[in-house]
Amino acid sequence: MEKRIYNFSAGPAILPEEVLLEAQKDLFALPGVGMSILEISHRSKTYDAIHAEAKEGLKKLLDIPDDYQILFLQGGASLQFSMVPLNLMPPKNKADYISTGSWSKKAIKEAKRVGTVNVAATTEEGEGDKKFFKRIPKQSELKLDADAAYVHFTSNNTIFGTQFHTEPEVGNVPLICDASSDILHKKIDVRKYGMIYAGAQKNMGPAGITLVIIRKDLLERSQDSLHTMLNYKTHAENDSLYNTPTTFAIYIIMLVTRWLLKNGGLNKMYEINKHKADLLYKCIDESNGFYKGHAEKDSRSLMNITFNLATPELEKKLIDEATKAGFNGLKGHRSVGGLRASIYNAFPTKGVEDLVAFMKDFQRKNG
Amino acid sequence: MEKRIYNFSAGPAILPEEVLLEAQKDLFALPGVGMSILEISHRSKTYDAIHAEAKEGLKKLLDIPDDYQILFLQGGASLQFSMVPLNLMPPKNKADYISTGSWSKKAIKEAKRVGTVNVAATTEEGEGDKKFFKRIPKQSELKLDADAAYVHFTSNNTIFGTQFHTEPEVGNVPLICDASSDILHKKIDVRKYGMIYAGAQKNMGPAGITLVIIRKDLLERSQDSLHTMLNYKTHAENDSLYNTPTTFAIYIIMLVTRWLLKNGGLNKMYEINKHKADLLYKCIDESNGFYKGHAEKDSRSLMNITFNLATPELEKKLIDEATKAGFNGLKGHRSVGGLRASIYNAFPTKGVEDLVAFMKDFQRKNG
Repeated sequence: MEKRIYNFSAGPAILPEEVLLEAQKDLFALPGVGMSILEISHRSKTYDAIHAEAKEGLKKLLDIPDDYQILFLQGGASLQFSMVPLNLMPPKNKADYISTGSWSKKAIKEAKRVGTVNVAATTEEGEGDKKFFKRIPKQSELKLDADAAYVHFTSNNTIFGTQFHTEPEVGNVPLICDASSDILHKKIDVRKYGMIYAGAQKNMGPAGITLVIIRKDLLERSQDSLHTMLNYKTHAENDSLYNTPTTFAIYIIMLVTRWLLKNGGLNKMYEINKHKADLLYKCIDESNGFYKGHAEKDSRSLMNITFNLATPELEKKLIDEATKAGFNGLKGHRSVGGLRASIYNAFPTKGVEDLVAFMKDFQRKNG
Repeated sequence: MEKRIYNFSAGPAILPEEVLLEAQKDLFALPGVGMSILEISHRSKTYDAIHAEAKEGLKKLLDIPDDYQILFLQGGASLQFSMVPLNLMPPKNKADYISTGSWSKKAIKEAKRVGTVNVAATTEEGEGDKKFFKRIPKQSELKLDADAAYVHFTSNNTIFGTQFHTEPEVGNVPLICDASSDILHKKIDVRKYGMIYAGAQKNMGPAGITLVIIRKDLLERSQDSLHTMLNYKTHAENDSLYNTPTTFAIYIIMLVTRWLLKNGGLNKMYEINKHKADLLYKCIDESNGFYKGHAEKDSRSLMNITFNLATPELEKKLIDEATKAGFNGLKGHRSVGGLRASIYNAFPTKGVEDLVAFMKDFQRKNG
């Protein structure tokens, strides 16, 4: 069996080894079917069962109520940046956006093509090319419009390593969340949301599929004048099978939900995620400033741990030595620099422990 | 190794066994990389090489000239039904569409949301619920507008089993083709086209990726007011990496192009495809009316062979017995009924020979 390394990539990201082995075993032909999952019709009984189990698994894991519908779409969260305002902003044509990073800003850019965007809060700092985010706004900072079509926020910011630990309170206005980088990392109360969307490729599966969980009454906002593929109603009425979905990615999501259910569900996953993040943040905080965490402490992400060293040269040295030692994908996003360890659900605790040992050793030699 | 059956599914459809075995071998970890193709970053060097080889393979197979750009998008041909008019219809806001089946009609429906559609020809027959197509229009039937933004056609009609054997002649107006179900089945002269698009899941790879081959000068038509993800320019300027593409599907396309190049390229593939289709059409034509081909002879598809028997009961009997004998996916589309054998590039000649033998035997017993 091919040797595997520790994959700290921000996304596409690590998947559970059990899931990979299961997918590998059956890739040539599904047992009793005689065809690969890559080849079967999306209208076949075999695929129907996979599609249904993927939805059922998500429903169980997140306790999704019956008045919400689960959709599997294409185009990533980036297409949702457009589909959300196109479908849900009318007829009011105004919405609140909380800006906490690059993804929020991209969502805002597309929403402005549809209607009026009220930036309810932004935590951006710095000037010109040096702009950055390092925290989540407090509830008291939010300037919300009670008449907005919805409030949009990004639950976790991969680039800056910040995360909402509780949902913003928005009264009766539907709350819409881009949860691409922390979906399924803990149990959330779906009832607090009008809609949740998430690209699969961080915590759920491979790239090429986007999960949408939408409260059914919001589907009534979608107008018939929308292009068919951009209308949530098309996909809701056809159980995401209006056209051929990314069948293989949905199959992997099904396997991931099985793995999560077998391993104690999302409460257990949260406990593990918290433990993993604590190990790394502790290493940073106890380094006497050798490692400097980027995010403010109460805004720290459990998924993406961002930190810097004293100089870019020292950062490069650490990345190079870590890569040689089998720790891959630690280079920070170009807009922050430094290092970023992405430790999604599938990332093993052992890998975090090994990285911490490596970082301590590096500090001893270079501190 | 799990036993495989003959898969006549119209799409997602059969892939070469060599490709499946290669993908299976490396699914747990790519050799020397230590991570699965499902997990690696789309910004990594490993993925860069895969992305580049997939494009290079297509370029070689189709002799794609340098003034064309290859894009990998999401959303299937169905999203292209909207993206084509949104990007390419302005500023004239009128285009010609040739209607030869259900997919053409869907393309027309979306184009009408953007501007004026001139149906240059339609070969639809019948009334009400009984409407159908059985042929490709002759060049003399086309009522083309020399001032149209483009002419759109569907090269192969999976549902009705008809296919253009030469491109419509459209003068200087850009020709745009939905080639989802026959791309790569033979060499075509790309210079005749302004743009070719194709969902991968019939002749190229798994579901979840759409190939777009566009002449670069046409990119200038895309207006900045378009939503970012719906603008061809976004994807062209970012080499299809503006957001995370369906990396695994592009990897499979790369393996499929390798397989095609190794096996003699598209001229050889066309020879084999013609031989396979001839075997089946001969069986139909020599059955003294026991099997009745749906499409008119000069419009027959090499990819999807559609035919009927005397009664729906007899058709059901054939499908049931064929399924038991290991021939899967032969049921015709609900809008035509009867049977359909989809025999794309990856479908083995042996499977067609076995089906012909089976059909002759069935005729002997039931004729």
